[in-house]
Amino acid sequence: MPTQAEIARFLAAEFPQTKCTVEAVGNQASTIRHEIGIEELRPGGTVAGPVLMTVADVALYVALLGEIGIVPLAVTSNLSINFLRKPAADKAIIGRCKLIKVGRSLAVGEVSLSSEGSDAPVAHVVGTYAIPR
Amino acid sequence: MPTQAEIARFLAAEFPQTKCTVEAVGNQASTIRHEIGIEELRPGGTVAGPVLMTVADVALYVALLGEIGIVPLAVTSNLSINFLRKPAADKAIIGRCKLIKVGRSLAVGEVSLSSEGSDAPVAHVVGTYAIPR
Amino acid sequence: MPTQAEIARFLAAEFPQTKCTVEAVGNQASTIRHEIGIEELRPGGTVAGPVLMTVADVALYVALLGEIGIVPLAVTSNLSINFLRKPAADKAIIGRCKLIKVGRSLAVGEVSLSSEGSDAPVAHVVGTYAIPR
Amino acid sequence: MPTQAEIARFLAAEFPQTKCTVEAVGNQASTIRHEIGIEELRPGGTVAGPVLMTVADVALYVALLGEIGIVPLAVTSNLSINFLRKPAADKAIIGRCKLIKVGRSLAVGEVSLSSEGSDAPVAHVVGTYAIPR
Repeated sequence: MPTQAEIARFLAAEFPQTKCTVEAVGNQASTIRHEIGIEELRPGGTVAGPVLMTVADVALYVALLGEIGIVPLAVTSNLSINFLRKPAADKAIIGRCKLIKVGRSLAVGEVSLSSEGSDAPVAHVVGTYAIPR
Repeated sequence: MPTQAEIARFLAAEFPQTKCTVEAVGNQASTIRHEIGIEELRPGGTVAGPVLMTVADVALYVALLGEIGIVPLAVTSNLSINFLRKPAADKAIIGRCKLIKVGRSLAVGEVSLSSEGSDAPVAHVVGTYAIPR
Repeated sequence: MPTQAEIARFLAAEFPQTKCTVEAVGNQASTIRHEIGIEELRPGGTVAGPVLMTVADVALYVALLGEIGIVPLAVTSNLSINFLRKPAADKAIIGRCKLIKVGRSLAVGEVSLSSEGSDAPVAHVVGTYAIPR
Repeated sequence: MPTQAEIARFLAAEFPQTKCTVEAVGNQASTIRHEIGIEELRPGGTVAGPVLMTVADVALYVALLGEIGIVPLAVTSNLSINFLRKPAADKAIIGRCKLIKVGRSLAVGEVSLSSEGSDAPVAHVVGTYAIPR
């Protein structure tokens, strides 16, 4: 299976504009970090929802790549997010993914998102990836 | 906060037809058990999807009652289920709920459902309850 | 493609305990009817959530069978329901499904559920079926 | 209720970085347009998932503002997206929202997203907004 460094290189090559970094991957899990700056904020000083969804999607993708190898054509088929608390405006967002099923054609995982340094999740995501044959 | 016995009595009084039993409740969590018999099975020897949804819904409700007290008017507003594996036809279904947010008007929790004696989840649920004011 | 009568016969043979009847099927759509009696009610005179989920699941399945033929092994992979209004205690539940994608391995549809004789939906469902190869 | 121009001005003032434009609003519905350029694309020439989620979220928000007036504090509580087809790389994304319930504390709507000039949806979203009291 690919190492953290290999997945980080793949991500940087395939998604050069991404601000997500791979903090950990393996054992059907991943940890992703996304710095928060002025571009990620909405009025009221909260992190924009699509930023949270992006971190969750990358966390699912990285956890899956760590499990099945680098499969560029895996695509998200469903993503469901619950927004729970207001994220801090001046902290990175951390996404922690655990896969709950890796089948032949579908993988399902959940992601807990929080502001760095806090345990209270700001959002919770369940997502499904379709794996090409 | 209500004890396990108090919640079990409330459930039996309010939902006399339920086959769910309260195995544990407290700390924003619950464990619910549902015996599986011929009525819960579908052709192919699998547990019917609505049975799994029922266990998840009761697990969310019981975990919430354990946290905010017995509030009969709390109602499910959203429930999203991913079916992961085929349940055993001859094992009870166990639902383990953890609340991930309890706000003033909404509570969100997740439930992992498995066949008794197995760790591999057969389904995963995220649900939202609306709490009356 | 199978006719409404063929699908109704298949459903009655495979799910002999079902109370759902096929009112219409075709054009990537279906209409399902479920009588409501004392067994489907919860305290407060409302239809139990799992009954609504059952009608939605059958509506998705029937719409899919009408589109791809009778494929017994198609299984629900995800079902997400929003509860919108209190159903009438003395009216049948009508589920109207429209498929929004029928792919090779996944089909996605939405179902609007209402009490017979009313246009206001009591619940809305989006579901995904996995189609075996 | 606010006009389309009033909502467009509010959106431009509150979310100055948004690329979404309000094409229509009223009758518990909205149409939103988002130009697609190099920044919105992913490798393979497909529109990035978070762009689709952004359009859906704005479409829900605008439809809600058109119904209840300009309520800046309404926030998304749940958003569930199904990705259906690959969007065109050189067409704007159009999001068409219909609200299916507007209650006192929650509003639920669905959004169909498509590439401009095509009827086949590229994604389908159901979302819930929490309305402050």
